Amino acid sequence: MLAKPLTLSAPGKAILHGEHAVVHGKAALAVALNLRTFLQIRPSNNGKVLICLPNIGTSLNWEAVRLRTLLTAFSDGLDESKCPSPEQMDALKEFAGITTGLSATESLGTLAFLYLYLSISAKYGQIPSVEIVVWSELPTGAGLGSSAAYSVCLAAALLTACGAIGCPLEEEKSIVRWPEEELDLINRWAFRGEQVIHGKPSGVDNSVATWGGVLRFQSGKITSLKRVPTLMILLTNTKVSRSTKILVAGVKDKILKFPAIMNPVLASIDAISHECESVLEAMAVSPSQDYYPVLEELFDINQHHLNVIGVGHPSLDSVCRVTATHGLHSKLTGAGGGGCAITLLRPDTDPLMVEAARQDLSACGFECWETSIGAPGICLHSLSSLKAEVLHVFNEV
Amino acid sequence: MLAKPLTLSAPGKAILHGEHAVVHGKAALAVALNLRTFLQIRPSNNGKVLICLPNIGTSLNWEAVRLRTLLTAFSDGLDESKCPSPEQMDALKEFAGITTGLSATESLGTLAFLYLYLSISAKYGQIPSVEIVVWSELPTGAGLGSSAAYSVCLAAALLTACGAIGCPLEEEKSIVRWPEEELDLINRWAFRGEQVIHGKPSGVDNSVATWGGVLRFQSGKITSLKRVPTLMILLTNTKVSRSTKILVAGVKDKILKFPAIMNPVLASIDAISHECESVLEAMAVSPSQDYYPVLEELFDINQHHLNVIGVGHPSLDSVCRVTATHGLHSKLTGAGGGGCAITLLRPDTDPLMVEAARQDLSACGFECWETSIGAPGICLHSLSSLKAEVLHVFNEV
Repeated sequence: MLAKPLTLSAPGKAILHGEHAVVHGKAALAVALNLRTFLQIRPSNNGKVLICLPNIGTSLNWEAVRLRTLLTAFSDGLDESKCPSPEQMDALKEFAGITTGLSATESLGTLAFLYLYLSISAKYGQIPSVEIVVWSELPTGAGLGSSAAYSVCLAAALLTACGAIGCPLEEEKSIVRWPEEELDLINRWAFRGEQVIHGKPSGVDNSVATWGGVLRFQSGKITSLKRVPTLMILLTNTKVSRSTKILVAGVKDKILKFPAIMNPVLASIDAISHECESVLEAMAVSPSQDYYPVLEELFDINQHHLNVIGVGHPSLDSVCRVTATHGLHSKLTGAGGGGCAITLLRPDTDPLMVEAARQDLSACGFECWETSIGAPGICLHSLSSLKAEVLHVFNEV
Repeated sequence: MLAKPLTLSAPGKAILHGEHAVVHGKAALAVALNLRTFLQIRPSNNGKVLICLPNIGTSLNWEAVRLRTLLTAFSDGLDESKCPSPEQMDALKEFAGITTGLSATESLGTLAFLYLYLSISAKYGQIPSVEIVVWSELPTGAGLGSSAAYSVCLAAALLTACGAIGCPLEEEKSIVRWPEEELDLINRWAFRGEQVIHGKPSGVDNSVATWGGVLRFQSGKITSLKRVPTLMILLTNTKVSRSTKILVAGVKDKILKFPAIMNPVLASIDAISHECESVLEAMAVSPSQDYYPVLEELFDINQHHLNVIGVGHPSLDSVCRVTATHGLHSKLTGAGGGGCAITLLRPDTDPLMVEAARQDLSACGFECWETSIGAPGICLHSLSSLKAEVLHVFNEV
């Protein structure tokens, strides 16, 4: 089933518009962020299953025969709509010795892997002895969907390894994707990985990592936008940590305290998401620089609204102010209260200006990436198409 | 009728909430600003009528008999609802030699005086030979209602001088006000002065200068709030000049461009004005420090909204940021795009903190006044109650 190493990648996620408002039934636009998680799966003949996560210095392996002793407990994997049960989690924790003090990232990453390995094996048949290396450009815990990118990569690799889905890589193509129904299967399994990691995920992050592009998310319904442009951005991590739960509760309190003031703000954010969706679809049909001022204006307006609902932060104000001095427009993305901001770059933005903005942001203690949004979802790479940094990681481990 | 010098004063005006939204049918709260215009009217026996405006270095006088030659043209002053006619303005301009190059402030101030002097004389009978000195703490052209304070002072002084209204000053009281129906008459005449100066004033500024306190203004209807607290503020003039007309047009354009995004913002501003009104009324009934965080929050929210509708300015952002570093909350007041900002001070705000904020604002090139809002409207002062600075001005001229 797995004749040679396969390398695949899935994008991270950013919220373009609608964060927080989505909790109150409004539309949000989630976009694929071209900071990617790369996974290489290699056949091995030592009877072991190995997972190596160089970002966090973790490398674990188990005898495949030992793993198979757990299989019966995972036969409910036959029904993809079932969620991981507490009993399954306990069995995996005991098996992997999770109680003995791994970090949260390491523990959850290990559990999600074991869960998907066993459930997919139970459903589709034995996965051969393999080595899996996962390396990511995404920071963890920054609200950028790193766990979903990880789950999607794992699901795609394991489903491919056991033959549940095809391996569409052709020699002459540098990047290929799976057909729609197979992507759907990847997404459903990835969601279960997300459930292992997050308990009750919304499903947005794994959908973005699977489908790429831009997704509209409203009242639990996730819709992929048909055609979207790729937009260049600066992504800035303020590195100010925050609790999404506390921020969400704060917004709710504000709405209860000032309903007549706050509900219109949510309505305005909803309208921003819809306006942005229209603009993106129009840009995809007929690209023009003329759309950028509108996108910038929507960024500015929403950033003010997010401050109004109480999820701003002085560090985010700094990002906006610093980038504004270079003529750039920014907004927070995700939970706010710190975390990350995105800054829109026009195709004709002077690279020297972008570099100057990056330097000013770094001087504030922030971390910056120049990347794009609207990136493709999970895909298979030919080895020759991988950038040197990724190749280097996979050659080292 | 005028046995001895009288000194009276009227307050300036600031918009607490609802600027711009009021143009679109929403509520605004206009407040009396305790930066005042002082007027002293003194009987004289030289047969002349003198007006002296030391702020702008103007002193003009006319023979009372020469002024009386114009009286017939002002007999429509019998109907207070009539507005100043172009013919009347032309006659006054010719009389005062306005064409020969006075500044706009000087010209309009002179015209408003002559118009009120003649119209009130025509209606209520001859005004004796008087000297009038008007001095103001208010900057002109900063949207703080300086022309309305001037018109209200003039109307009150001239109506008192000719006996149309009483002179309620009692020896033992430092400050007295006229009864309601006389205030109403002052206000109606002051509106005509405002018409001379502004063409089509809304009537809000002269109402605030007359009644003081806080007025709600919506769809042309002006309502005085019954009981309001006096709030301490820092008023900051960024000295960035702007065109109210262009700003108002810009807001209209934004609403037409993004109706679904902007109309909810206006609705939210409307709700802020109503919420603020409730809080002020509650504070007047039972004063408590607990209301200040709410007032501060409303300032912050509205400042964001005003940025959203496009009337912010980097200078105003600076005021907000600088005062925020001292724990204080600010918003623009009036047209925006520069102009003035107000910063709320709590009764227990450390004076050293206020002084530090003032110094930081001055370092930005801004001008600051520590004053109050919700101040009394037009009133008569006993000489002994006047502060030294004002006495000094009136003793000098």
